[in-house]
Amino acid sequence: MAKKNPPLKIIPLGGLDGIGKNMTVFEYGDDMILDDAGLMFPDDDQPGIDLVLPDYTYVLENEHKLRGIFITHGHEDHTGSLPYVLRDLTRKVPIYASRMTLGLVEGKLAEHRLTNEQLVEVKSGQHVDMGAFGVDFFSMTHSIPGAMGVFIRTPQGTVLHTGDFKLDQTPIDGVRPDYSAINRFAAEGVDLLLSDSTNATRPGFTGSEATVGASLRHIIKNAPGRVFVASFSSHIHRLQQVCDAAVSVGRKVVVTGRSMISNTKIARKLGYLDIPEEDIIDAFDVDGLPDEKVVVLCTGSQGEPLSALARMANGEHRSLTITDKDTVIISATPIPGNEKGVQSIINSLSKVGCTIFDKSNALVHVSGHGSQEELKLMLAMVNPRYFAPVHGEAVHLRAHAKLAMDMGILPDHIFVIDNGDTLEMRNHKVRLGTPVDSGVVYVDGMRISDADPVVLRDRQKLSCDGIVTCVVTVASRTHKALEIDISGRGISFADDSELLGGAQDVVRSTVDRSAEKAGNNVDATRKAVRNALSNYLWSKTKTRPLIIPVVMEV
Amino acid sequence: MAKKNPPLKIIPLGGLDGIGKNMTVFEYGDDMILDDAGLMFPDDDQPGIDLVLPDYTYVLENEHKLRGIFITHGHEDHTGSLPYVLRDLTRKVPIYASRMTLGLVEGKLAEHRLTNEQLVEVKSGQHVDMGAFGVDFFSMTHSIPGAMGVFIRTPQGTVLHTGDFKLDQTPIDGVRPDYSAINRFAAEGVDLLLSDSTNATRPGFTGSEATVGASLRHIIKNAPGRVFVASFSSHIHRLQQVCDAAVSVGRKVVVTGRSMISNTKIARKLGYLDIPEEDIIDAFDVDGLPDEKVVVLCTGSQGEPLSALARMANGEHRSLTITDKDTVIISATPIPGNEKGVQSIINSLSKVGCTIFDKSNALVHVSGHGSQEELKLMLAMVNPRYFAPVHGEAVHLRAHAKLAMDMGILPDHIFVIDNGDTLEMRNHKVRLGTPVDSGVVYVDGMRISDADPVVLRDRQKLSCDGIVTCVVTVASRTHKALEIDISGRGISFADDSELLGGAQDVVRSTVDRSAEKAGNNVDATRKAVRNALSNYLWSKTKTRPLIIPVVMEV
Repeated sequence: MAKKNPPLKIIPLGGLDGIGKNMTVFEYGDDMILDDAGLMFPDDDQPGIDLVLPDYTYVLENEHKLRGIFITHGHEDHTGSLPYVLRDLTRKVPIYASRMTLGLVEGKLAEHRLTNEQLVEVKSGQHVDMGAFGVDFFSMTHSIPGAMGVFIRTPQGTVLHTGDFKLDQTPIDGVRPDYSAINRFAAEGVDLLLSDSTNATRPGFTGSEATVGASLRHIIKNAPGRVFVASFSSHIHRLQQVCDAAVSVGRKVVVTGRSMISNTKIARKLGYLDIPEEDIIDAFDVDGLPDEKVVVLCTGSQGEPLSALARMANGEHRSLTITDKDTVIISATPIPGNEKGVQSIINSLSKVGCTIFDKSNALVHVSGHGSQEELKLMLAMVNPRYFAPVHGEAVHLRAHAKLAMDMGILPDHIFVIDNGDTLEMRNHKVRLGTPVDSGVVYVDGMRISDADPVVLRDRQKLSCDGIVTCVVTVASRTHKALEIDISGRGISFADDSELLGGAQDVVRSTVDRSAEKAGNNVDATRKAVRNALSNYLWSKTKTRPLIIPVVMEV
Repeated sequence: MAKKNPPLKIIPLGGLDGIGKNMTVFEYGDDMILDDAGLMFPDDDQPGIDLVLPDYTYVLENEHKLRGIFITHGHEDHTGSLPYVLRDLTRKVPIYASRMTLGLVEGKLAEHRLTNEQLVEVKSGQHVDMGAFGVDFFSMTHSIPGAMGVFIRTPQGTVLHTGDFKLDQTPIDGVRPDYSAINRFAAEGVDLLLSDSTNATRPGFTGSEATVGASLRHIIKNAPGRVFVASFSSHIHRLQQVCDAAVSVGRKVVVTGRSMISNTKIARKLGYLDIPEEDIIDAFDVDGLPDEKVVVLCTGSQGEPLSALARMANGEHRSLTITDKDTVIISATPIPGNEKGVQSIINSLSKVGCTIFDKSNALVHVSGHGSQEELKLMLAMVNPRYFAPVHGEAVHLRAHAKLAMDMGILPDHIFVIDNGDTLEMRNHKVRLGTPVDSGVVYVDGMRISDADPVVLRDRQKLSCDGIVTCVVTVASRTHKALEIDISGRGISFADDSELLGGAQDVVRSTVDRSAEKAGNNVDATRKAVRNALSNYLWSKTKTRPLIIPVVMEV
């Protein structure tokens, strides 16, 4: 039975421990809505993991309350866990997002063979009722079209979530942040502001996307040969600017790289990317064209070794090879962790001898997230009673909180919280509630599993020291060793017969001694073999491979 | 028998494929000298490797010619392979370096139990004859004291090697680059210049080390509580500035972290680090002191998870724990590849709530390598006939070559070469010679081995998908399967008995089928088991663990 006057609960299940896997639950009594359903890409210390999802058990446990899911924009850190959530729900719920976001979501869902979902397009300015929640969508500027913020009215008060944003006065598609709506909501009263913290440590304003266009045009116009532009395939505004520059100087655009091909198709179909049919050509049709008539739009801006850019740089692409007469623009910035991969492609391109432009020597990229002045402007416009920085690492959330304090928001009205923490709102007042279970789940091949530190630790150990298997058959009567088979993988001494011979001797005497002492105890023998072999290998090689002893009585 | 009029050969064995493992051979007839003997730290795609050395087979093969080794400065990318080289040589050769460099080298050699080497201290301005080579040492400024360049006279011409350098007019120890010597050598005629390329893509001048001092003093003076400064432990000038700032405002200096303790000891003993005895105290004696009287010098500027800074941030240090009243200065920049580790410590510190200063918000670090204007100034002063950029990745070497071209050096007088390439000089003219074998060797525990891509590939596979061992005993008469033991490590399905049961069935039927077809062929059975199990696991889990099948007849 529902309690009388329940609080509004705001529960971030992801997004507060790093930039990725954004997901926030809003719950009021028997009603619940979900704000974003993102994923994160694994770290170096999560070997073999394909994807990292927020643990959304809380959503499943309260599935009966779920009135709708809305997605603020189409980046994977906001959409990527949607297929998994939908597969785990036992009933259909409506999914609200902009046309562009739904276009990208649809593609992802199709890959997971989810074709029968309830996708509902919403436009900026539109109001949607989801149970007890009234949700108003408003346009924001970001590095993808169709990004929106939301204003949520509930019986206990209001929440404004900016979504990912910068404040771009000259966006490429002309769709500015809806300042009018934001100020209208502010006038009505925003009890809690959730605002993007990604660039909270950067002073000043983030430059407009339009500033990049002039620089791209200049480079493309003056390049003597072909121009290759690597960028994020979802950054449709950037791609639009590349296409505009190419068309304006009479160059054709070639698109290559799997996600670049698929995203430009979706964006053109939905009307977000505008280039005349005759100006965009297939990579196989490029042969007839003079070099100075070609711009190639490609993937690889993050240094991915199998990307189109890497393959074209290394002569491994089916139809295009970069030469010393070409110009390459890396129109992106490395996501933290990708720095070495990007540097490696730049080194390959340097060896080819082409001209290279990137952030270090030309204005070919600006961030999609607002810097400190934009965050402060947002705080000033919204003038919220309470504030919780979201979308960032610990350092970003705290820097954003400091900005809010500098602007006069009382420290006890600012909540720097973790995933799973609960904010409770009653009568326009916010306080910390009881946390819920949260964490991450790993997608590893087809399996989805809770974080199992043992598996990851084993994998890291395997990757450092390799593995040695030792199979011993023992006589069932005497328990003495008969045959011993020692082999290894990922070890540097696999061919050292003297060392392996010594290991055999050690194992044999260990088994025989164990037989005398413990007799018929296979478990004890196995442990003794593992210890003896581990010590022997340490003494000889100063490495500790993982040892798998198998003892079989015959 | 030595040929008449042999060429001077200049053979870089390392240092031209990245920043690390610098080592260059100079050879003339029956005489050879070695310029630096460095190492490189392994990459993420070299799991389990401890160190990467240049392949110095060429040095060993020509050992009888070796007249001496000189080391330009004490960083590990210039000294680190020395213990390995010395161990592999069958006779003693003199090792020339500055007092500071030898101090650090001695420590390293002692770790390898090499105590009886011929270490010869040289000073700036000193001349040493090594066989046919006359070597003049001259002081240079870099991020470690005692850095030197060399001018080498040979019967075929002269070579100037800058060593790692910036041009710092206000170095902390007052030892400026020896411009007078450089200009004297230039007047005599430099046939070939080898110059540091690390910052060849950076415009302008690198700031003086002294500029950092003012900023450190300001922060340390105004901090309300303790100040923790993380830096490179070999950056003695930086440590000196921290000590000076501390002493000037009446704070004591506490040193923590293994390499920080050992390097400050060496530097103080040799007179490179100057701080009154009473102002440097042990970490255990800090308890009595008020917070505003303490500066802690520590390791951890590269985000190393076991470093003093990381342990103090996470409450795992024996005597010091960072609190929200403290100030932390990260007086360094992340070496490429360490960005995420550093960010992770910054996040931990943010959660603690201390005040953090790093490159992004204060002038607390400058590079030790000269930028474009310094590299051009060096080219202008030396005015070499030929030029080969050294010490850099592909992009840096090429950017440096371009600077030289911009300054009027003819393109065919500039050599952008790879490790193992040979430059030959005859009568002051340089041309490309025949390459020698080069490459890398890995130190993996106690073993030194050639790059074995199979071992590293296995390790990467192990780290991604784990391993499954499958031991089958077969009856020696019927060849049918008796017992089957399947187990795995680093796999996510280790506890899935249904899946493992299915795997057992697959293996059993595979073995029995193989017995019918191939009879007594253990090898064929093993292969069949591996394939069947691999396919089964792929179909069930979409992962491909490494499979080790063991088949034993009993």
